[in-house]
Amino acid sequence: MEYKYAKRISQIKASEIRELLKLTEKPEVISFAGGLPAPELFPMEEIKWASSHVLTHNGEQALQYSSTEGFTPLRKWIADRMNAQLGTSFCDENILITHGSQQALDLSGKVFLDEGDVVLCESPTYLAAISAFRAYGCEFVEIETDTEGMIMSDLERALQTHPTSKLIYVIPNFQNPTGRTWSLKRRQQLADLSAKYHVAVIEDNPYGELRYEGEPLPSVKSFDRSGNVVYTGTFSKIFCPGYRIGWAAAETDVIRKYVLVKQGADLQCNTMAQMIISAYLENYDIDAHILSIREVYRRRRDIAISTIRRYFPSDIKYTVPEGGLFLWLELNEKINAAKLLEKCLEHNVAFVPGNSFFPNKQKLNTLRINFSNMQDDKIAEGLIRMSEVLSHMFP
Amino acid sequence: MEYKYAKRISQIKASEIRELLKLTEKPEVISFAGGLPAPELFPMEEIKWASSHVLTHNGEQALQYSSTEGFTPLRKWIADRMNAQLGTSFCDENILITHGSQQALDLSGKVFLDEGDVVLCESPTYLAAISAFRAYGCEFVEIETDTEGMIMSDLERALQTHPTSKLIYVIPNFQNPTGRTWSLKRRQQLADLSAKYHVAVIEDNPYGELRYEGEPLPSVKSFDRSGNVVYTGTFSKIFCPGYRIGWAAAETDVIRKYVLVKQGADLQCNTMAQMIISAYLENYDIDAHILSIREVYRRRRDIAISTIRRYFPSDIKYTVPEGGLFLWLELNEKINAAKLLEKCLEHNVAFVPGNSFFPNKQKLNTLRINFSNMQDDKIAEGLIRMSEVLSHMFP
Repeated sequence: MEYKYAKRISQIKASEIRELLKLTEKPEVISFAGGLPAPELFPMEEIKWASSHVLTHNGEQALQYSSTEGFTPLRKWIADRMNAQLGTSFCDENILITHGSQQALDLSGKVFLDEGDVVLCESPTYLAAISAFRAYGCEFVEIETDTEGMIMSDLERALQTHPTSKLIYVIPNFQNPTGRTWSLKRRQQLADLSAKYHVAVIEDNPYGELRYEGEPLPSVKSFDRSGNVVYTGTFSKIFCPGYRIGWAAAETDVIRKYVLVKQGADLQCNTMAQMIISAYLENYDIDAHILSIREVYRRRRDIAISTIRRYFPSDIKYTVPEGGLFLWLELNEKINAAKLLEKCLEHNVAFVPGNSFFPNKQKLNTLRINFSNMQDDKIAEGLIRMSEVLSHMFP
Repeated sequence: MEYKYAKRISQIKASEIRELLKLTEKPEVISFAGGLPAPELFPMEEIKWASSHVLTHNGEQALQYSSTEGFTPLRKWIADRMNAQLGTSFCDENILITHGSQQALDLSGKVFLDEGDVVLCESPTYLAAISAFRAYGCEFVEIETDTEGMIMSDLERALQTHPTSKLIYVIPNFQNPTGRTWSLKRRQQLADLSAKYHVAVIEDNPYGELRYEGEPLPSVKSFDRSGNVVYTGTFSKIFCPGYRIGWAAAETDVIRKYVLVKQGADLQCNTMAQMIISAYLENYDIDAHILSIREVYRRRRDIAISTIRRYFPSDIKYTVPEGGLFLWLELNEKINAAKLLEKCLEHNVAFVPGNSFFPNKQKLNTLRINFSNMQDDKIAEGLIRMSEVLSHMFP
């Protein structure tokens, strides 16, 4: 059969992570591959109550069509929380509810990108952001990062040499995949460069509330004087991902464009899910809940780090993230992480080779470890097993 | 402030319907404007049961990330039902769960359309399909329709004169906005032309189960020998729209492309919503439920038709749909439906002027009436009020 697909189809590849998730569904596999939160921490009883409450008191509204912008009380809550935590000054009009923050990335592509435009991103960066933007025919320019975030002189040079730059995509807190956090100074500098070159910033912050040490930092958006910064957030890591509720936050002019493209994309988000989350937020203490998540994930991070320190070869490099779900390993240059994965899967351990987090470059000796989804003892066991495979393959 | 948006942004307009929905939220307005199902018919008690059942027995799974393709038992149910009702031969591998069938349209644009490609559609056609496809930079060629559907000689001529034709978009059952249904012969002919010219068909069937008279007809897909037909369906009209669960059904090669673009667009649908619908379908009789919807809507359609026949000027033309949610009015050529709407809103009656259902043409004297969302007495009252405004403005 002969199909005339769009050109973009030849450029889009299946996500290695999502294909891997299929392989790792077997219960005997210790998986560091996904970015899944720990399901035992979902506030199950509270969600049962909120779900029944919404159906009993506002059932017809919750099951009906609703506005593209989203459920207003939820938008207000998000604006208030961002203002309190991140130094922004938003109201509900600045917030669009999206189908997970992944949709906010897709809509960003639709709002800003023409074919051939350039997206500047951290190197490495979030895999599914690459897919989201690539669908709009963009090119990527990777900007080197150090422990404080993107290197600003490199970014400015790229902005100068690429006049079709349209987006700067960053994850300033506990980045996916590296776990790194940007310094305050770099956040300010990024906002300034965005204003100077009139290039939009997508500040993606799915993990910001999951800080295990150090002081929270204000968002890039809080330093934005030009209106060019768009912020994206999600309930997936602090509540649960199954409802697919995230958001985009920006100046009202910009958000109105997002609303327009969302109308054509899927009309609106799940009404019920928005109202359940809103009922939960009104009736329970999400801060206490987030505190309990942080305790568990901090412990898991510590186990992962100490196991790697003790068992892995001394020539590997690894990040020590202050929060989030991931850490990043750089192995000896002669080691191919994809081959390591093949062997590890034979021993029922999984992770994601790092190469697919680079839109252009090849870095075959890198890999990402997720530490949120496995029980404490499994983390130690899985990493020890990995270290054994490693020392057997590369003695 | 200065923003560098994508070119498409200048071409996307706010949906008149959705802007109107905001105006018509006041309870005193009798609205024929939306495409909303009747909320009093939602199976509320059954949904309460299904929701609680899923949270109690599979809560962690329902709140977690899940596959892009969708919940397998739900995909199986959809394939089986389509095979029984529509003459297809699908299995779960042919089905992708989408965020409403609107998302299936957006993904169709992403899979098939490059800038400048041509979409052939009925004239008039579904407003939000125009927005979904237009975002990919396509041109529209409107094909005339008669009471049997698209005129096939016109379609073939358009296929010959537009070599960049990529999609033929049709709603063969109770079309939005006209309410018209395609004959069996035209369905076969469409499948044949699609094969002959290697152009994909998007067969959108949101209303097919809501037939009030006459015999159900097989789908265009059932005549598809070339694999070029993609079918899109939804639970919005037979269950409820708030969960945003629809689907695309096609050959596995094609569905795999849809899965790839959905990964970048939003990762996956709401896990919980898919499992609740699946639990409902396993434990209740949806056919009995659909029967009860049909009875109510049939009565509302009859009231609308008989009121129009009795009170509206004799020179108007209107469709008498065999099912669905809409009927279509063509007023005297000197009447501008947008101006009529302004006056009607002063009398708390709303509808959608027909002009926005034409991607290129101007047809200012047309309008769409939705008859599913208002109680019986309101339908008569609202249409009588409209007829009074009409006779006052154009005596």
